[in-house]
Amino acid sequence: MADFSRIAVLGVGVLGSQIAYHTAFSGYDVVAYDVDDEAVERARTRLGRLAERYEREVENAGAGARGVVERIKLTSDVAQAVSSADLVIEAAPERLSVKRRLFAAAGKAAPPHTVFATNTSAIPPSALMDSTGRPDRFLALHFSNLVWRHNIAEVMGTPRTAPDVYASVVGFAASIGMVPIEVKKERPGYVLNSLLIPMLKAAGELLTDDIADPTAIDDVWRIGTGAAYGPCEMLDIIGLTTAHHIASHGDAKQRKFAKLIKEHYLDKGRTGVETGQGFYTYPR
Amino acid sequence: MADFSRIAVLGVGVLGSQIAYHTAFSGYDVVAYDVDDEAVERARTRLGRLAERYEREVENAGAGARGVVERIKLTSDVAQAVSSADLVIEAAPERLSVKRRLFAAAGKAAPPHTVFATNTSAIPPSALMDSTGRPDRFLALHFSNLVWRHNIAEVMGTPRTAPDVYASVVGFAASIGMVPIEVKKERPGYVLNSLLIPMLKAAGELLTDDIADPTAIDDVWRIGTGAAYGPCEMLDIIGLTTAHHIASHGDAKQRKFAKLIKEHYLDKGRTGVETGQGFYTYPR
Repeated sequence: MADFSRIAVLGVGVLGSQIAYHTAFSGYDVVAYDVDDEAVERARTRLGRLAERYEREVENAGAGARGVVERIKLTSDVAQAVSSADLVIEAAPERLSVKRRLFAAAGKAAPPHTVFATNTSAIPPSALMDSTGRPDRFLALHFSNLVWRHNIAEVMGTPRTAPDVYASVVGFAASIGMVPIEVKKERPGYVLNSLLIPMLKAAGELLTDDIADPTAIDDVWRIGTGAAYGPCEMLDIIGLTTAHHIASHGDAKQRKFAKLIKEHYLDKGRTGVETGQGFYTYPR
Repeated sequence: MADFSRIAVLGVGVLGSQIAYHTAFSGYDVVAYDVDDEAVERARTRLGRLAERYEREVENAGAGARGVVERIKLTSDVAQAVSSADLVIEAAPERLSVKRRLFAAAGKAAPPHTVFATNTSAIPPSALMDSTGRPDRFLALHFSNLVWRHNIAEVMGTPRTAPDVYASVVGFAASIGMVPIEVKKERPGYVLNSLLIPMLKAAGELLTDDIADPTAIDDVWRIGTGAAYGPCEMLDIIGLTTAHHIASHGDAKQRKFAKLIKEHYLDKGRTGVETGQGFYTYPR
């Protein structure tokens, strides 16, 4: 099992910043890369805000939470970011060409022992595995938003991932306090979205067919299954722009749901939790 | 709005006993009917066991929990059960002929003002509405197992249910501490099962395609969505015999899942929580 100690995170957006912060918080040396000086500045702000959330929400984070940010090296030079990395975690935008280019650059600059992981939700890892030039040292490591609370990491190899590489990444996920979820074969949506999307689709159909109101749907789900949120609140958290985008590429029922989201929510500026208005008004 | 005070519960099985007990516990006069003296004896035992659970699990139930059982009148005479009922709640086995016969007998014996509700999960209420002879005073009132914890009651009318009858049953549900869920049109599965079944089907596919183990699937769901149980534990709670029955009537993928349940669980005597063995061993 590889003994990772230096981690590079490529892309410091919503999830990339959480991965970088949480990994550094767990004691690893972290270098975080983003495309240019401006993006690096935004990353710094994001990481600072995360430190504040850890102070408030994470047990024993305490005063040390801010020191974590100072320990993360930020750079807009990808070669420098990966030059001594044991593990590279890519969390760039969900565009095949962007991710391929990034893995190619990282593959060239990283030492031979480096392992590469993609956090992609939408792209099969086998579509990316060749970009690094070492498909046996490549796999998917998929985090969920709010990593300190929803602490799962889905580990999914391709047919060419070496078993010891897979095992070492499972070990790494556990070492930063994630529950590693071993996804045994490539599957779109991994496990979480394979379960979640059919339920959210069903909620969309209940709304478009006018069977029940959002609050009734969410009450049923929370009380009937003991869940923390109902599907409409989940859609608000995911963001209604994203929900609309996904539904508008679905079947006829889903496209009807996309229309409902657009007319009743997006066109009124209600995009979900991020704007404080979606199916509900936030904070609730 | 009708002012219900005397409630008849027809059928004192797993859910019927909970409905009868919880309604009496909430202060109503309750008569409970089952088919013969033997069934009535079993009902008495069931209600006694429920009282013990309420003592342990329900806040402020305390010493009064046992007295509730004594207040419930038990009978094997359906006419007597409904002779002065304001509301009749049917919770008989899920067979159309059984429910129709029961509603016909109750409809003949009950006063003109009586409202009739079915707790059916599987039969559309419009297939039963004529049996009582007063379809305008008929609707579905659907409880969830462990009514004191999963306190939702889905209220679903037929096209012929009178609005004031619907409103009075919504009011009744709230008065016994349920969150009334207004299901605006007839829908197989109401709201809860419309959401739950697609998610459970997806879990079945992940298992039959050998994508992840039951514990991984459940970890993802609990941690990723904040739910109390994952889908495999839900199937254990529903019972694997029931899960097998439903899956074996589904599409090709579901029939494959039925086969998996039979071979790996049922044939080994693992039927879920009721036998202490299913996907998991109980108590966990």
